[in-house]
Amino acid sequence: MSKHPEQRPRVVILGAGFAGLAAARGLRRAPVEVVILDRANHHTFQPLLYQVATAGLSAPQIASPIRHILRKQRNVRVLLGEAVGFDLPGRRVQLADGEVGFDYLIVGTGVTHSYFGNDAWEPHAPGLKTLDDALEIRRRVLLAFERAERETDETERRTWLSFIVIGGGPTGVELAGTLAEIARHTLTDEFRVIDPASARVLLLEGGPRLLSAYPDSLSAKAGHQLHRLGVEVHVGAQVTGIDAKGVQIGSDRIDARTVLWAAGIQATALARELPGPHDKAGRVLVRPTLQLEADPSIFVVGDLASLMQDGAPVPGVGYAAKQMGAHAARAIARLVREGSNAELPRFRYHDRGSLATIGREAAVAVFPGGVRLSGLLAWWAWLFVHVFFLIGFRNRVATLVDWAWSYMTYQRHARLILMNGSRSDREPS
Amino acid sequence: MSKHPEQRPRVVILGAGFAGLAAARGLRRAPVEVVILDRANHHTFQPLLYQVATAGLSAPQIASPIRHILRKQRNVRVLLGEAVGFDLPGRRVQLADGEVGFDYLIVGTGVTHSYFGNDAWEPHAPGLKTLDDALEIRRRVLLAFERAERETDETERRTWLSFIVIGGGPTGVELAGTLAEIARHTLTDEFRVIDPASARVLLLEGGPRLLSAYPDSLSAKAGHQLHRLGVEVHVGAQVTGIDAKGVQIGSDRIDARTVLWAAGIQATALARELPGPHDKAGRVLVRPTLQLEADPSIFVVGDLASLMQDGAPVPGVGYAAKQMGAHAARAIARLVREGSNAELPRFRYHDRGSLATIGREAAVAVFPGGVRLSGLLAWWAWLFVHVFFLIGFRNRVATLVDWAWSYMTYQRHARLILMNGSRSDREPS
Repeated sequence: MSKHPEQRPRVVILGAGFAGLAAARGLRRAPVEVVILDRANHHTFQPLLYQVATAGLSAPQIASPIRHILRKQRNVRVLLGEAVGFDLPGRRVQLADGEVGFDYLIVGTGVTHSYFGNDAWEPHAPGLKTLDDALEIRRRVLLAFERAERETDETERRTWLSFIVIGGGPTGVELAGTLAEIARHTLTDEFRVIDPASARVLLLEGGPRLLSAYPDSLSAKAGHQLHRLGVEVHVGAQVTGIDAKGVQIGSDRIDARTVLWAAGIQATALARELPGPHDKAGRVLVRPTLQLEADPSIFVVGDLASLMQDGAPVPGVGYAAKQMGAHAARAIARLVREGSNAELPRFRYHDRGSLATIGREAAVAVFPGGVRLSGLLAWWAWLFVHVFFLIGFRNRVATLVDWAWSYMTYQRHARLILMNGSRSDREPS
Repeated sequence: MSKHPEQRPRVVILGAGFAGLAAARGLRRAPVEVVILDRANHHTFQPLLYQVATAGLSAPQIASPIRHILRKQRNVRVLLGEAVGFDLPGRRVQLADGEVGFDYLIVGTGVTHSYFGNDAWEPHAPGLKTLDDALEIRRRVLLAFERAERETDETERRTWLSFIVIGGGPTGVELAGTLAEIARHTLTDEFRVIDPASARVLLLEGGPRLLSAYPDSLSAKAGHQLHRLGVEVHVGAQVTGIDAKGVQIGSDRIDARTVLWAAGIQATALARELPGPHDKAGRVLVRPTLQLEADPSIFVVGDLASLMQDGAPVPGVGYAAKQMGAHAARAIARLVREGSNAELPRFRYHDRGSLATIGREAAVAVFPGGVRLSGLLAWWAWLFVHVFFLIGFRNRVATLVDWAWSYMTYQRHARLILMNGSRSDREPS
């Protein structure tokens, strides 16, 4: 896809996450041609991925086709494809199967799991970043209970009924809390040999406390709430090995057939193709305007961007990504209008608060101005915020119906094991 | 899994479709131990599979975990596993990974696609019998529009925008009608290069008319309704070849990247392991009591059973399967109560009517007593019957919400392409 000289400037956006979508929308009145490219045909509402992984929601409830979201914005073209590199002098993005020319570029491909150099752990401990990840985790969790029901050896059965979540950030806390809820409540009465309520759910955190981005008091509350749900929390637990049958922590060994990874992130591979500098996690250091140091027509946004503000990094959360995408769009609109010498404003992240849910009616929240919530009130805040921001009215209504139903009955309607959807290379033995 | 002599007689049910579930439920008050085994963890509401394949419903909306459905029936044990053969003298079912002893056996594993000896066609023309099949078809259909949008060669683009459905029975008619609706209505405004409404949808039927199980007049009406939706219907079209880029009909060739198979069925492979006789499609001929000729403690039910009634075969529909499952359960309860010499009643199929939908507000229906419907009234009858019989209250409410929404907006919310869910061995080149 090349450009004709008489055309409007073309802005290419890589990644249709929160940042990329906000950038595309921010350019709706700008005299530019927008091309947004993503490997998936859908935008995923990542904060609810753990609900898909734990069978509370179906995949379509937290995802919408990108081209449906942007269908009314006539200056946008949506492409399904994968960016693999750049020809910066030629102003082209190289795709797995072609190329796209650009005048301005917004890169927002986000982050993926990092196993800290231990890539051999990946098959045994899948992470949770995409819908495919979520469906894989769902499959493993449900299958573990099925295997336990048919297992005749008591020791083996225990390992099928042991679940380890590695990483005590929001995703790890959400996964562990929900797994405990499934074992204690959802599966009641359904098995004849095993007692699902006897399942062990462990949450391992290498650092000194859970939810390290939250205030101390909320970390402690999250710990209490998890404990009440029946989760065994271990802090200061540095994992040194993972295999098909369990986890090694120094000289200690915990046997478990299901291990989930929520411990580390790194920039998506595409970041390496951009001129540096990069931070330790491979994220791209950007100017305060979000421009690339080496090329001011390139903006990096969302989790992929590494930027300090007031002495702390801008956090890798949805709100920051949205604000960055909108900022990059405004900056490019100004460059188009006023020429490449236009002075661009610095990006400022406006904190809207953070929320992490732990389980049924348990959550922690911190808002600007020092407001802290925990327990039921935080849980309702979490529910409201997440349903409100779900993209698409239909999803909101159907999701509320499902949540109300799950709430009343403890049931999780999406408990399907789809075999052909499995990643055979990752299947535990 | 073996039996202890002091236990109640064990009834093993293979397959948790309409027949298997009805059999399990029919045994709820019988003094027996029931084991129901299925390859999937969920019961699938097959009449709505085409809605999942065409992204109108999500997989969890038409499926429920088998052990959830049967959780309150204490004499049932649900096992996830695959039956591969029988040791009839030893009274055991052989599983892929173990075995189960039985006193009575109910086999209801149903039918799968048949390519009439042309197994090389399968990768190019997937059929629709399971949720995995439905998700694979969904992926191919959605991907075809995406590929067309990026294709620069006009001829190639046409082949991506051509969809062929082979087989003019209810499934083929439903798929073709819905595909046309997606192209004409759902995708409006979403693409910038292609016009989805220009897509070609062809329905090929080898016989002289569509819906051959219905009266002539309804076949004709179905043809008219499909024509109005923009489907090109060809009857008497005997397919002689299928490859990655199209279909051969004798000396005629139709280029199309997406070909779906709804033409033939055959018994699941397990039927071959049962002593015959079998019919041409591999189904097991049973006595009028549904017992196996060679072994009266074995019952064959549902689509897998071949039985004539009043000069016509009992049809392979959900109602018949349910009635057969319930009949087998009553028969076994009597054998347990009265001993193996008890006289068993003959099975009688009670026709409750047939319904096939064609698209938005278009359907055909035939009820006992000669009542025939077509058009809007038949469509409402179809909607009512299908939602009513969906298993699980939650599914019914959420499905109605989705249908109402789809009806008003023409939108289909489950338009997700999940890449890791693809069967790479079946992917069109």
